[in-house]
Amino acid sequence: MEASRPLDSLNESRGKRVIIELKNGKQFVGVLKAFDIHINTVLEEVDEMENGEIKRKLGDVFIRGDTIILISPQ
Amino acid sequence: MEASRPLDSLNESRGKRVIIELKNGKQFVGVLKAFDIHINTVLEEVDEMENGEIKRKLGDVFIRGDTIILISPQ
Amino acid sequence: MEASRPLDSLNESRGKRVIIELKNGKQFVGVLKAFDIHINTVLEEVDEMENGEIKRKLGDVFIRGDTIILISPQ
Amino acid sequence: MEASRPLDSLNESRGKRVIIELKNGKQFVGVLKAFDIHINTVLEEVDEMENGEIKRKLGDVFIRGDTIILISPQ
Amino acid sequence: MEASRPLDSLNESRGKRVIIELKNGKQFVGVLKAFDIHINTVLEEVDEMENGEIKRKLGDVFIRGDTIILISPQ
Amino acid sequence: MEASRPLDSLNESRGKRVIIELKNGKQFVGVLKAFDIHINTVLEEVDEMENGEIKRKLGDVFIRGDTIILISPQ
Amino acid sequence: MEASRPLDSLNESRGKRVIIELKNGKQFVGVLKAFDIHINTVLEEVDEMENGEIKRKLGDVFIRGDTIILISPQ
Repeated sequence: MEASRPLDSLNESRGKRVIIELKNGKQFVGVLKAFDIHINTVLEEVDEMENGEIKRKLGDVFIRGDTIILISPQ
Repeated sequence: MEASRPLDSLNESRGKRVIIELKNGKQFVGVLKAFDIHINTVLEEVDEMENGEIKRKLGDVFIRGDTIILISPQ
Repeated sequence: MEASRPLDSLNESRGKRVIIELKNGKQFVGVLKAFDIHINTVLEEVDEMENGEIKRKLGDVFIRGDTIILISPQ
Repeated sequence: MEASRPLDSLNESRGKRVIIELKNGKQFVGVLKAFDIHINTVLEEVDEMENGEIKRKLGDVFIRGDTIILISPQ
Repeated sequence: MEASRPLDSLNESRGKRVIIELKNGKQFVGVLKAFDIHINTVLEEVDEMENGEIKRKLGDVFIRGDTIILISPQ
Repeated sequence: MEASRPLDSLNESRGKRVIIELKNGKQFVGVLKAFDIHINTVLEEVDEMENGEIKRKLGDVFIRGDTIILISPQ
Repeated sequence: MEASRPLDSLNESRGKRVIIELKNGKQFVGVLKAFDIHINTVLEEVDEMENGEIKRKLGDVFIRGDTIILISPQ
């Protein structure tokens, strides 16, 4: 029943590779390390993607929650 | 009388297939698994739609509530 | 005197046909079933309108309040 | 001294004809029936104006406060 | 020391002629009658300015705080 | 250790000349007189800058915090 | 387990060189001196970057949190 709450569902993706899409159109793929109730999120081993190709490699990335549109496990 | 509150109405769509339209014009169709008071939403078996056709298939998707315009059962 | 508060005025439209205009320019006409203090709103028997013509028919629609500009009884 | 607070000043326009300008450039003229602390507002006998001419006549209109730029008695 | 808080500084302009610039680029000049913690503001004897010239004369104007960029005594 | 909090760092600039950049691209240079937790800010002896040149001289300016991108001592 | 919260992860970058990307597309590289729960941030020894080159050198910079998209250690 926990999983009937969105953050519980999101928690099931912790430690797994997810794609995050931002309001400005950017896409980041990385391991979901942490998030909070504002959906502030930390990804590890991050690839910034563009048209399905890696545009830039980043280590850890803190993303401010209010810029996020969606998070989906890969 | 519960259904006189918007979130109670929305709750009647839980487990059913819904369309969600976002502020950036994107449309997602999937099974409504979870939502909270911010309208943060989790869909399962998601199709991203464009002009009535499936653009991309996704598994589970967490959508941040403040990007959502509307949710309608299919 | 209740009606001197906007939500009380809005409540007088419950069960009646209203037009809702959104920040993105979209217009929806339907029966006002429910709303809350955030102006999250549920319409029934919804027509999406464009230039005075029906663009799309929807059943129930949950509209997130922060996308709404105005609500007016038809 | 009440009038040294903006909502008290606004209250002096209750029952009078006001112009409301919205962030999207729209202008509505009508009788100020109600408002709340979010500046959610209800106008009666509303004319939507464009370039000084009436574009559309509406009865009552509920306007969500966060779309409003200014309110001025006519 | 009061004046070390922005609203105390702003209060020193009460009753004086100020210019208010809005996020949409509009400029209003008038006497600062009232403001609150949201910077909702009431001006009296208002001139809407454009390129240094008066575009429109208004009496009292209530301006919603979240549309304001700056307020400066004339 | 106070300085490990952003507002404490900002406080070290009080009474000094700073540049403030706004979301609309405008730049203001002046003496930082006051700010609050919303980053509502008052500058004194203000120059509005454009391309490194003074565009307009203002006395005191109250800037609403939510329009500010950054503040940097000159 | 602390590091399972985004702000704890971010705290591990304190005193290190990070890149901050803003909603308006600007990039700043500097030493992360301080941040708070709003992600208001202070950087030291700041370079504003454009297309991988230094556009402007700044000393300390206070950045308002709501303008930030991401923070990543360099």
